[in-house]
Amino acid sequence: MNNETMRAAYYRGDKTFVVEQANKTAPKAGEVTLRIAYCGICGTDMHVYHGNMDARVGLNRIVGHEMSGIIEAVGEGVENVQLGQKVVVRPLDHCGDCPACNEGYEHVCHNLKFLGLDTDGAMQEYWTVPAHTLHILPDDLRLDHAALIEPVAVACHDVRLSELKDGEDVVVIGGGPIGILVAMVARDLGGKVTISEVNENRLAIAQKLGFDTINPLKADLASEINTKTNGKGAEVVFEVSGSQPGVDAMTTVAATRGRIVMVAIHASKPTIDMFQFFWRELRLLGARVYEPQDYEKAIKVIKSGGVDADTVITDISPLADIQAAFEDLDRNPTAMKSLIKVGELA
Amino acid sequence: MNNETMRAAYYRGDKTFVVEQANKTAPKAGEVTLRIAYCGICGTDMHVYHGNMDARVGLNRIVGHEMSGIIEAVGEGVENVQLGQKVVVRPLDHCGDCPACNEGYEHVCHNLKFLGLDTDGAMQEYWTVPAHTLHILPDDLRLDHAALIEPVAVACHDVRLSELKDGEDVVVIGGGPIGILVAMVARDLGGKVTISEVNENRLAIAQKLGFDTINPLKADLASEINTKTNGKGAEVVFEVSGSQPGVDAMTTVAATRGRIVMVAIHASKPTIDMFQFFWRELRLLGARVYEPQDYEKAIKVIKSGGVDADTVITDISPLADIQAAFEDLDRNPTAMKSLIKVGELA
Repeated sequence: MNNETMRAAYYRGDKTFVVEQANKTAPKAGEVTLRIAYCGICGTDMHVYHGNMDARVGLNRIVGHEMSGIIEAVGEGVENVQLGQKVVVRPLDHCGDCPACNEGYEHVCHNLKFLGLDTDGAMQEYWTVPAHTLHILPDDLRLDHAALIEPVAVACHDVRLSELKDGEDVVVIGGGPIGILVAMVARDLGGKVTISEVNENRLAIAQKLGFDTINPLKADLASEINTKTNGKGAEVVFEVSGSQPGVDAMTTVAATRGRIVMVAIHASKPTIDMFQFFWRELRLLGARVYEPQDYEKAIKVIKSGGVDADTVITDISPLADIQAAFEDLDRNPTAMKSLIKVGELA
Repeated sequence: MNNETMRAAYYRGDKTFVVEQANKTAPKAGEVTLRIAYCGICGTDMHVYHGNMDARVGLNRIVGHEMSGIIEAVGEGVENVQLGQKVVVRPLDHCGDCPACNEGYEHVCHNLKFLGLDTDGAMQEYWTVPAHTLHILPDDLRLDHAALIEPVAVACHDVRLSELKDGEDVVVIGGGPIGILVAMVARDLGGKVTISEVNENRLAIAQKLGFDTINPLKADLASEINTKTNGKGAEVVFEVSGSQPGVDAMTTVAATRGRIVMVAIHASKPTIDMFQFFWRELRLLGARVYEPQDYEKAIKVIKSGGVDADTVITDISPLADIQAAFEDLDRNPTAMKSLIKVGELA
């Protein structure tokens, strides 16, 4: 298929995406070419749109990693996959030879390439990737729902690292898309979840999804959690806000020996109440992307309805409208998940 | 023995200890009276001396909790102890009915009483304590060495929480008395320990004890550790300095998935590099006092020589000279451990 063409969306800098014809490529040894169905717009893609990652992605990059698709072609030596299978890609390519890889922590490889940022991504009709990145989907999983697997895998990783047990109290600080997914996955495992969020639109979505909510600008979060848990506090806290007030709150709501998962990426260094870490022997767990088992868990939790995909997906636009989709999402920060319908598979 | 008297040292505020005659008391049900041999001066006792804890301890308090002694009298209902046995006290009295106690974390009880601060302590010839606080010592353990068990138990708790494995690289940030004890306990478990310390006198002691040392004012700590570990970093880091530079350093020397134990008590809130926690999935573990198994481990590691007690104990003064002992220690912050010889048991 070397001479065939396809459509691809290129980031060209300055908040601009351009959809152009591009050459399809055949998979090399160890690679697989996918026909892309849907691709979600990630917060990271919004950072690209805003020009914050130009040094990393350059000005001719096909972004996109929250995707679903089917196997179109298989390179030499690739086994255990069949043409037409529904798949998603775990968009991490590790070096295999650094201290992290040597310890089995390939997802935090010191030389990690993130597909769709460090290489071209899924906002193109056909995407060629290393076969080791694939996860095969159940035949009856909808491909639009499957585009949520990557962000749900983030949530599954966060919740797995927290070692949440059935019946434990959970506070999720920040009720944006990732916070809501973390809350859903935690609830699916039996966590009693409260979401703290300052935006009333997001609070309304969280309430519609059945979560207890608190607006910390209107109520005292720490005393509300203290009351709700009979003085115990929350065994598990997820800091998803990325804000100093969120970091301040996390140590006030945690139970003795509570586990706080740092989901948000704090580019600046927040001040943190180390006295509370001492006093209650708190634990802070850094979390980054996902491991293969988190993808498998994400597939299960979406298939079972533990994550309410139809509520999370708020917009679907065709690839031709990718520029408008980014502009709309930028104007509407309370939207949950926007998908791009890349191909004609649905 | 109600009408007998003994000597006791009272903190009376304003950097003043007074040794006076006091009445001996008989143990009530569930209590044991000990004849005290030695009692070390803890950093917390120095805070009392400086008046920083007057609100908590009052102005007529017998301090002291790093002690050794023998059983002098046993109250009703106390079993499994015999008169004359060598013992130490784990100076924690928990409520038994708070969320932490209910989870088995009695050492971080929400209503914890610390003996020697919230009640009278061991700077008296006879000390009556709840029997549940006792740990029986081997007959052949020296009572001066045994006065180190409490601070060594702190170190054993810190190292246990770190889940240190044989052969892992360890950085101890801060080479004071607790840092040195943490380093000794970590080495005893097979850790490859480097101590970072800015004071040259302390560095000399650490070197004499056989540790690799770095003065981060004279060398780049992060790059030295990076080189020493072939780019991996230290699997376990203990932050014992209580300083912002120490907190800055801890995230630069930790390996991917490294465990950082917060040993120091940071009264003010430091800024912490959360991006590194994300990037390398670091873990921060708050640590407070000790649990019973940490005391048992401390007894073993002192008896085996894993902690070099004779090097750690730098001064021994009689109870009559307690005022001078505090004054000397205050003038000489690089001293390691000063003991008070409280009774005549040695």
